Amino acid sequence: EPHYVLTLSCPDRPGIVHAVTGALLRHHANVTESQQFGDPDTRLFFLRVQFTCSADPARLDAALRGAAEEFDFDWQLHPLSSPVRTLIMVSRAGHCLNDLLYRHRAGRLPIDPVAVVSNHEDLAGLAGFYEVPFSHVPVTPGDPASKDAAEERLLRTVDELDVELVVLARYMQVLSPRVCEALAGRAINIHHSFLPSFAGARPYHQAHTRGVKLIGATAHYVTADLDEGPIIEQDVERVDHSHAVDDLVGLGQDLECRALARAVRWHAERRVLVDRNRTVVFR
Amino acid sequence: EPHYVLTLSCPDRPGIVHAVTGALLRHHANVTESQQFGDPDTRLFFLRVQFTCSADPARLDAALRGAAEEFDFDWQLHPLSSPVRTLIMVSRAGHCLNDLLYRHRAGRLPIDPVAVVSNHEDLAGLAGFYEVPFSHVPVTPGDPASKDAAEERLLRTVDELDVELVVLARYMQVLSPRVCEALAGRAINIHHSFLPSFAGARPYHQAHTRGVKLIGATAHYVTADLDEGPIIEQDVERVDHSHAVDDLVGLGQDLECRALARAVRWHAERRVLVDRNRTVVFR
Amino acid sequence: EPHYVLTLSCPDRPGIVHAVTGALLRHHANVTESQQFGDPDTRLFFLRVQFTCSADPARLDAALRGAAEEFDFDWQLHPLSSPVRTLIMVSRAGHCLNDLLYRHRAGRLPIDPVAVVSNHEDLAGLAGFYEVPFSHVPVTPGDPASKDAAEERLLRTVDELDVELVVLARYMQVLSPRVCEALAGRAINIHHSFLPSFAGARPYHQAHTRGVKLIGATAHYVTADLDEGPIIEQDVERVDHSHAVDDLVGLGQDLECRALARAVRWHAERRVLVDRNRTVVFR
Amino acid sequence: EPHYVLTLSCPDRPGIVHAVTGALLRHHANVTESQQFGDPDTRLFFLRVQFTCSADPARLDAALRGAAEEFDFDWQLHPLSSPVRTLIMVSRAGHCLNDLLYRHRAGRLPIDPVAVVSNHEDLAGLAGFYEVPFSHVPVTPGDPASKDAAEERLLRTVDELDVELVVLARYMQVLSPRVCEALAGRAINIHHSFLPSFAGARPYHQAHTRGVKLIGATAHYVTADLDEGPIIEQDVERVDHSHAVDDLVGLGQDLECRALARAVRWHAERRVLVDRNRTVVFR
Repeated sequence: EPHYVLTLSCPDRPGIVHAVTGALLRHHANVTESQQFGDPDTRLFFLRVQFTCSADPARLDAALRGAAEEFDFDWQLHPLSSPVRTLIMVSRAGHCLNDLLYRHRAGRLPIDPVAVVSNHEDLAGLAGFYEVPFSHVPVTPGDPASKDAAEERLLRTVDELDVELVVLARYMQVLSPRVCEALAGRAINIHHSFLPSFAGARPYHQAHTRGVKLIGATAHYVTADLDEGPIIEQDVERVDHSHAVDDLVGLGQDLECRALARAVRWHAERRVLVDRNRTVVFR
Repeated sequence: EPHYVLTLSCPDRPGIVHAVTGALLRHHANVTESQQFGDPDTRLFFLRVQFTCSADPARLDAALRGAAEEFDFDWQLHPLSSPVRTLIMVSRAGHCLNDLLYRHRAGRLPIDPVAVVSNHEDLAGLAGFYEVPFSHVPVTPGDPASKDAAEERLLRTVDELDVELVVLARYMQVLSPRVCEALAGRAINIHHSFLPSFAGARPYHQAHTRGVKLIGATAHYVTADLDEGPIIEQDVERVDHSHAVDDLVGLGQDLECRALARAVRWHAERRVLVDRNRTVVFR
Repeated sequence: EPHYVLTLSCPDRPGIVHAVTGALLRHHANVTESQQFGDPDTRLFFLRVQFTCSADPARLDAALRGAAEEFDFDWQLHPLSSPVRTLIMVSRAGHCLNDLLYRHRAGRLPIDPVAVVSNHEDLAGLAGFYEVPFSHVPVTPGDPASKDAAEERLLRTVDELDVELVVLARYMQVLSPRVCEALAGRAINIHHSFLPSFAGARPYHQAHTRGVKLIGATAHYVTADLDEGPIIEQDVERVDHSHAVDDLVGLGQDLECRALARAVRWHAERRVLVDRNRTVVFR
Repeated sequence: EPHYVLTLSCPDRPGIVHAVTGALLRHHANVTESQQFGDPDTRLFFLRVQFTCSADPARLDAALRGAAEEFDFDWQLHPLSSPVRTLIMVSRAGHCLNDLLYRHRAGRLPIDPVAVVSNHEDLAGLAGFYEVPFSHVPVTPGDPASKDAAEERLLRTVDELDVELVVLARYMQVLSPRVCEALAGRAINIHHSFLPSFAGARPYHQAHTRGVKLIGATAHYVTADLDEGPIIEQDVERVDHSHAVDDLVGLGQDLECRALARAVRWHAERRVLVDRNRTVVFR
């Protein structure tokens, strides 16, 4: 029996769940998972319902459309059968790419990795081992035209390959506001995080000099505000004075793998809903 | 407006949530939180709905009764206004008692601690500081009659004080099967946990000799199977070779406080539902 | 046999440990714990040696003085018999004070709490229960003279009571640079921490609005740079969208207790050495 | 300048560190890291010293031999230049193998993976991608002779390739006591861990049925006591009622990767010393 995920957000008021469950009941759907959240600050309501249903998809859609109009849903109905078509962008460091592609092959990440795009050639072999097409799209430092061309090509690839999700798996180029805009809500980035935060260059050196006892990583949706998009997942590890900068970098890579893999999985399973600048993650 | 929590479990089949939300909608209830879980193994469905409602409680009850009969609910409707009447049992170690009473006073634990009962007198002062009546009910080692009498008195106290929850906050006496039975689902115990487990006496010594790198604590409902009731919460800390047995004991006490406080809070907020020998915790 | 802790830092060069162990050996000391760290960045060497020794303390001191002069030690020799005389400053929130005093009474914190000083009267009862003298030293908002007087009195108390350690256990007044200077290296503060950091007022509200998935707490030595002194300990907990601001505050209080208790214990056990703006913590 | 690690254990008595530092000082060694531990239970002393030294290795060795005889050291002097020759055994699940080989290639694991040996052919491609020779050594269920032959071949390979460390990276065959004996102290295994422990088949199913809130993994030295050798590292993750058995298995694989990678790194860096049935890990 086909499996679906319905996700929606709308202004919170009584009757939403009753209306949705009514529509599903009339089409003999069988709910396997359901989570909801009413945000008391924004007065928005969020719902994720996973269900099986053998009804004609068009009729199911029509039934939900009725409720959607009544309650002003921002909604999506996804068949769970098709993994999320994903483009992974990398530079030289391969830890996140390796982790994502291994998990995918092991059947633990419901994505379809349709391409790896990089501004370097280092990771062509890794992509090749996992049989994912690799494109080398160089960006010449100090040459805005080369960056523009690379971004143009990225957007074209996203379009041509029908890409639903772009994962910046340690892609060391800042995306232009135009690209961030174009990929809003469907591009995930990973970066280091510290308490306190360190702006500027060489953050691990700064963290080391400051003597932090914890280092972290944050996976978030890309927005034009660099490293400031809605946070999907964070992770952290203890460190101490004996960790040299390079040890911190190594630990940070492990954290990056973990936080990014979870964020990508939750996104692919349609568990992440955006609530202004926050996320609601129905784990 | 009065605040309620409805909890229920029943055989899983379509229509349960629709029926419940329908009954609530007809009485103009306003749902503030709702969580559900269908256990694919036991085929049982669990629901917790928190809502405000100004309808006559009797009519609300009657409306839910209809759904309950149709779907064979095992259900309870709790007003959230009244904190859970709680009896805390202790022996000599006061860390959990101190933690629970401090949290209560700070307004972070929705219980009403109606009595502290102990087989020792050491913690009378602590109970007194928090203005909770303290009863010393001694148990003479090797004298089964004194234990029987103590248990008799415990059950009588539970009855007289209308106690809803008994917390064994490091009470170092094993309760008889009869008492476990009488308090099924409303008595929470806390004990140490290790990987691997250690049966028998002096578990911290065994853990130390074995060189474990993690120690833990488990809060669970009391059943006649010693330390084997449904687990509500567990917590864990890293240790290493340099921790002496006494260090492990000290860390273990911290873990016991944390796991027990969470378990008691979740129980008091009606977030813990029992699924055979497991718990469903709607955090 | 008397128990001592020797702590030292000095420019790193060969022979330091050999010299120290030689001096100890000649006085028949028995080393029970020893940790060292050479910081490759600052080229400083740090050593903590715990040992028993029945030699005349003056002769032991003289023996170590020889090595100290040769290697230019910044060193201290502490008898472990005497707990650290500690003054605890609080405002209205009592979670850290309760945690510290309970641990002390349970024999798990080698401090001697000689006074609790507060700008409010709320916590007099708690201090009283633990039989620690309580002073109410009010600070009138907007009246710099009252703050000056309060600081004057603090420094005088530190002096009169021979206080070795000042713990700011949620004391909600900013200390003046003069006081920070006077207490350098012997005053510990606790505050919330987030990834990313939030400057300004109502940090938990900011963290909530930003949708962080982790909240933390940092214990650090007080310096004139507000919340920027050498970090001693940090701790962190996971949160999600369902945590309201008040839930974050409650979790933050638990983290504050844990991080502060560890920092105070490590300081009291002479395990924390300062390495410019970092700490070396020999746990 | 050549870099060495000296590790030793011996009966604890005064003068050990002074003797070792004296020998190193006379040969102008430069200590970069040093850790020690005296076990109060076993009265054994453990030391790890990392140092650079340009003296003739034979003379350095002779100098240490003097101290070793005086204090009855069980000691080893390792040049740090040569990574540890490592044989990795696997069956079908590749998560640990992938993790170890990726870390090695990224320069984060000081091993030299000389061979991958498996009772299945599934992971030949992965080994090939990392250019590590792969041997398929089948074991026929129910045929003891095939198991004996496989073990014979394992021991021969260890011998021929001068293997210093055998890593059982989810190798699903139980090694015979004879092989465990032959590889004592140089074979590391990884397995799942729970609180409480579950003996017997299908541990993840048992953990799920029991409703545990934490699952873990343990890396340990192999001994004839199945899964009971000295523990090197453990790790743990929170789970809840919503995790199906397969989710637990997936999380368990992540934990296995992490605990095993740390154990292998610490072993390769000569940070793990064995103290009867415990380990002393100088991280």
